[in-house]
Amino acid sequence: MQAIRVGIVGASGYSGLELTRILSRHAQAQVVFVTSDRWVGQMVASKLPASTLSLSYVANDAGLAQAKDVDVVFLATPAETSLDLAPKFRAAGTRVVDLSGAFRLKNRADYPRWYNFEHHAAETLAEAIYGLPELFRESIRNAKMIANPGCYATAAALQVAPFVKAGLVHTESIVINAASGVSGAGRKASEEYGFMEIDADFRAYRTLKHQHTPEILQTVATAAGTGIELVFTPHLLPIKRGILSTAVMKLKPGVAGGDIQKVCIDAYGREPLIRVVGSSDAVRIAEVAQTSLTVVGASSDGSHVVCVSAIDNLLKGASSQAVQNMNLMFGVPETTGLL
Amino acid sequence: MQAIRVGIVGASGYSGLELTRILSRHAQAQVVFVTSDRWVGQMVASKLPASTLSLSYVANDAGLAQAKDVDVVFLATPAETSLDLAPKFRAAGTRVVDLSGAFRLKNRADYPRWYNFEHHAAETLAEAIYGLPELFRESIRNAKMIANPGCYATAAALQVAPFVKAGLVHTESIVINAASGVSGAGRKASEEYGFMEIDADFRAYRTLKHQHTPEILQTVATAAGTGIELVFTPHLLPIKRGILSTAVMKLKPGVAGGDIQKVCIDAYGREPLIRVVGSSDAVRIAEVAQTSLTVVGASSDGSHVVCVSAIDNLLKGASSQAVQNMNLMFGVPETTGLL
Amino acid sequence: MQAIRVGIVGASGYSGLELTRILSRHAQAQVVFVTSDRWVGQMVASKLPASTLSLSYVANDAGLAQAKDVDVVFLATPAETSLDLAPKFRAAGTRVVDLSGAFRLKNRADYPRWYNFEHHAAETLAEAIYGLPELFRESIRNAKMIANPGCYATAAALQVAPFVKAGLVHTESIVINAASGVSGAGRKASEEYGFMEIDADFRAYRTLKHQHTPEILQTVATAAGTGIELVFTPHLLPIKRGILSTAVMKLKPGVAGGDIQKVCIDAYGREPLIRVVGSSDAVRIAEVAQTSLTVVGASSDGSHVVCVSAIDNLLKGASSQAVQNMNLMFGVPETTGLL
Amino acid sequence: MQAIRVGIVGASGYSGLELTRILSRHAQAQVVFVTSDRWVGQMVASKLPASTLSLSYVANDAGLAQAKDVDVVFLATPAETSLDLAPKFRAAGTRVVDLSGAFRLKNRADYPRWYNFEHHAAETLAEAIYGLPELFRESIRNAKMIANPGCYATAAALQVAPFVKAGLVHTESIVINAASGVSGAGRKASEEYGFMEIDADFRAYRTLKHQHTPEILQTVATAAGTGIELVFTPHLLPIKRGILSTAVMKLKPGVAGGDIQKVCIDAYGREPLIRVVGSSDAVRIAEVAQTSLTVVGASSDGSHVVCVSAIDNLLKGASSQAVQNMNLMFGVPETTGLL
Repeated sequence: MQAIRVGIVGASGYSGLELTRILSRHAQAQVVFVTSDRWVGQMVASKLPASTLSLSYVANDAGLAQAKDVDVVFLATPAETSLDLAPKFRAAGTRVVDLSGAFRLKNRADYPRWYNFEHHAAETLAEAIYGLPELFRESIRNAKMIANPGCYATAAALQVAPFVKAGLVHTESIVINAASGVSGAGRKASEEYGFMEIDADFRAYRTLKHQHTPEILQTVATAAGTGIELVFTPHLLPIKRGILSTAVMKLKPGVAGGDIQKVCIDAYGREPLIRVVGSSDAVRIAEVAQTSLTVVGASSDGSHVVCVSAIDNLLKGASSQAVQNMNLMFGVPETTGLL
Repeated sequence: MQAIRVGIVGASGYSGLELTRILSRHAQAQVVFVTSDRWVGQMVASKLPASTLSLSYVANDAGLAQAKDVDVVFLATPAETSLDLAPKFRAAGTRVVDLSGAFRLKNRADYPRWYNFEHHAAETLAEAIYGLPELFRESIRNAKMIANPGCYATAAALQVAPFVKAGLVHTESIVINAASGVSGAGRKASEEYGFMEIDADFRAYRTLKHQHTPEILQTVATAAGTGIELVFTPHLLPIKRGILSTAVMKLKPGVAGGDIQKVCIDAYGREPLIRVVGSSDAVRIAEVAQTSLTVVGASSDGSHVVCVSAIDNLLKGASSQAVQNMNLMFGVPETTGLL
Repeated sequence: MQAIRVGIVGASGYSGLELTRILSRHAQAQVVFVTSDRWVGQMVASKLPASTLSLSYVANDAGLAQAKDVDVVFLATPAETSLDLAPKFRAAGTRVVDLSGAFRLKNRADYPRWYNFEHHAAETLAEAIYGLPELFRESIRNAKMIANPGCYATAAALQVAPFVKAGLVHTESIVINAASGVSGAGRKASEEYGFMEIDADFRAYRTLKHQHTPEILQTVATAAGTGIELVFTPHLLPIKRGILSTAVMKLKPGVAGGDIQKVCIDAYGREPLIRVVGSSDAVRIAEVAQTSLTVVGASSDGSHVVCVSAIDNLLKGASSQAVQNMNLMFGVPETTGLL
Repeated sequence: MQAIRVGIVGASGYSGLELTRILSRHAQAQVVFVTSDRWVGQMVASKLPASTLSLSYVANDAGLAQAKDVDVVFLATPAETSLDLAPKFRAAGTRVVDLSGAFRLKNRADYPRWYNFEHHAAETLAEAIYGLPELFRESIRNAKMIANPGCYATAAALQVAPFVKAGLVHTESIVINAASGVSGAGRKASEEYGFMEIDADFRAYRTLKHQHTPEILQTVATAAGTGIELVFTPHLLPIKRGILSTAVMKLKPGVAGGDIQKVCIDAYGREPLIRVVGSSDAVRIAEVAQTSLTVVGASSDGSHVVCVSAIDNLLKGASSQAVQNMNLMFGVPETTGLL
């Protein structure tokens, strides 16, 4: 078969680098351009020694000029940039996988509150499909425009949706506490993410205000057919990469431990990129770091269920999921390039 | 005034070392003996270079033989050892501050489930006072036998009790997620706590089974006069010391943000060892590590309150709290040796 | 071509795990057995989730019993075990790549001092070829018995040999200071390598006594044709993996900066697994961790040259080098499975 | 006795913060002003919760205006700022302890090369005394102007000087490799010192170019009466604070192991802030971090001596040494405020 021709916009961020790494080795993809306003003119191999791509970074604009030369473009850009670029690539007929939050929320009215901008790209938003394959695989296959999920939202939706869908838990006051490595904050020159500030510390941030909250709500509602009430609290870990998410849900009467294992197995037992383990304590970041996998495990005391999930925030939380979506869109085996 | 004569049993553990460090410099205390079956015959200064104590470690038995030479003994020993030693020291008339869990739960029937032993020291248990000064200061002043609180239980009770007591939150399904540094597991030669296993990782453990759960329930019930329902999930951080605890509580109707700040200020505004900060995001482990302080902050969205607390697990979670209790018991200023 | 049939003995150590990971995906190799006395009966996939091998671990003895079913066996075992097993596998006609130090030193008299045992396997020692491909590629091609180099010895010999060989530096008092991640100590249940002891610390160890010292001396003498005098000091880093080695050599009169760059480029410019960078400051562990690469860079002030090298101690310092040797021995492309 | 009135200029850097912390609790000192152009108007207690100082930060200029109100001022400022301020404070009659490098090198001609500026403050430079108490105690007692030593220079001079002075080692090609925690780079908003760049990495920097090189040469020459030849290579550790320095020196013929221990003990056995340990392997950063101590240990094989030293770069390498100098200058016990 003919290779899928791809472009990568915003390739100097952590997600962009991972995307470049994955797509460089992807048996069915050919990288046509990589853009980075910061690294224009430098060779990819100088930034990714393991890559064999013989391309130089070009400016974002130069990428846009090549829109018609690629089948799909990945936008690893800030939300405002994606909001601007996605409609332009779509106008050129190029499929888009956007890794930002710009097209994740269906309700345009949510953007000013959670993203601080007015959403003026209604048409592109309307065609955007939320790219969480384990929940929405079929609609992804036919998508032209993918809103690639947020890192926390991926970990959270995957752990909560099966229980809500199965009707085993109360939907009021589901509580999710998650913790992420520093790469989740993106590449930055700041004192806040300096080694001196991060090492040996741990703290919550954006309590009750994190922009992935409405995304989780929307995803669970869509996947399970039922709205939930959620308190989501993210925390910052002194590690480079990985997310661990701990969800606490109140069981409805009469639910047994076996029911809980069955829910997980039924939901994900056949998923190639999800591993279900026997308890919430068996889930750990070290197991998923640098992999495309999600690990999920649940424990119960008859009254509550605690379900823990873990992903690499740069891979399943961003780049490997973007490629998984591309694989589905172009009909190649879903895990190509990801194992 | 005459110095308080103290003995320390189990001085080679992390808490025992911190206790020795604090008491070496305590203006009103004189350390008479320090025991460690592991370090018998070695000088304290060889383990604690900053200490000026000219004592050698003796065996635990030798410490017991000196029971009458001290006014108070600190037991920094495993729960089974404390269960055995505390009654013997009490029989000699020595006051006891026990840092283990052996005397924390009032209901003897709870011990087999949470501590795996039958509690045969009913008399000592009966006289034990739970040593959390900010909640139970007056009863500590007259205590002869102190059950020094668990590290997680300290962080959790201090963050939850004021809200329950003020009647602002629903008492069903309070959810606490906490994370601790590795020293919380004690000093061990194990692969599990090796650098290779801990660094760059994060995981939950003892989900729905941690022995501090009944301790938190009992403390909040006693302090607030109301029972609660609790899901407590501890996690293991890749740092040496410190605990951050995140409590999510559902507000009753009509509670305002100002009410929440007022609860914290009313409860702790005058406490010398607690700092109340303006939001849950302003609490961090780095601020409390190596100090005797607790930091508490809360945020709300009108529907839930998220209250975060942080302590050093070896200090406020163990040794500095033990000394705070001693100070109260002997009528010296409460923060002596702790600032 | 027919697959190379391989066995792995000692597969539960860090090097054994990496070896299993690499060989699982090696296009020309077929893993026939993996042994681990510790994990007998467990599936490889339970320890290496990314592996698709459907094998269980067997006992070391069971591996030996299958000696004739494999073309080559890797011994990722302690030196004493390798000393015992290597002659037995050789007697069965199996080629051996030994990752321990048991066959590295040519002079049998050196073993009691550096390894604490008498070397009784003279015949196997006599046929052992030191497997550092960039220095001894041709002799490796025909080897039946490979002594795979030590991690420090690899980093040190590669940085020093070219300068000695080119006659640019004085051979007396070459000083090498190296620092390794904790995995260099092997998998252990010990307090010494616990997170509490390692994190935030740094120290020298086995000063003037490390067993890689004679190995470096022998390698440089063989490769450069000249003996040297060496002071080698290893240090322990609070990281999981990687070695950085800093060699200081005194220049002979009249050597220019350009000569120094030329030495590096001439020696390694065409090596597929070595990258030469422009200065000693451009070498860092983060660049080589999790890769099979060596990075080397040198700087000079006209009087001395400082040459820095970096490798992943578990890969180029152990497992990837072992596979590189196998590739050479069996005539497959040298970097197969390593990029 | 009357309290020593002190001012601190540049109090928001890491050294300035430590200085404020130490001087807040110093029994003989009274802090009159603290300056920080960055934190003007904020309370000290908001940055140093453990401090009981009720002062606000003022601008550097405001500090200068109070020159006559203090007996001594500490300049924890960049070298260029110190070069400007020190003469002004001296003109007001205030004694100065400068923590920068601006007055450490006696030869004005060295500044353009190592510090990138012309040294125009000849008079102040002439009266500057190099403040390394263990080597130059007597001249410090009468100093009005102290050049407080560099962090690496402190660790290096203390480990090398006794051996050179005793005439036991060759003075050509002494090799020092040192490694520092990240705080050595100062407080910065940069990607280079971000957690993502530092964690799990290690590298050399400023090879053959570090500005502490001439400082070490000058100090050893002054203290030992003999010049040396030195190669100094600093490295960057993934830890917050601490320096470990490893010096390799070639022994003159006939020097015994006992001579080496004797050198260390004779030099430092009575020093209150130096601990001599029995071997180079017994020195570690964890032992000195957060203390004012230096630990030194040496090992030998009859041909070379390896001497390792460790300090906290912010304390003995900066702030506690500055206070030690002040104590000497004002005739109070040398360790006041430092234990």
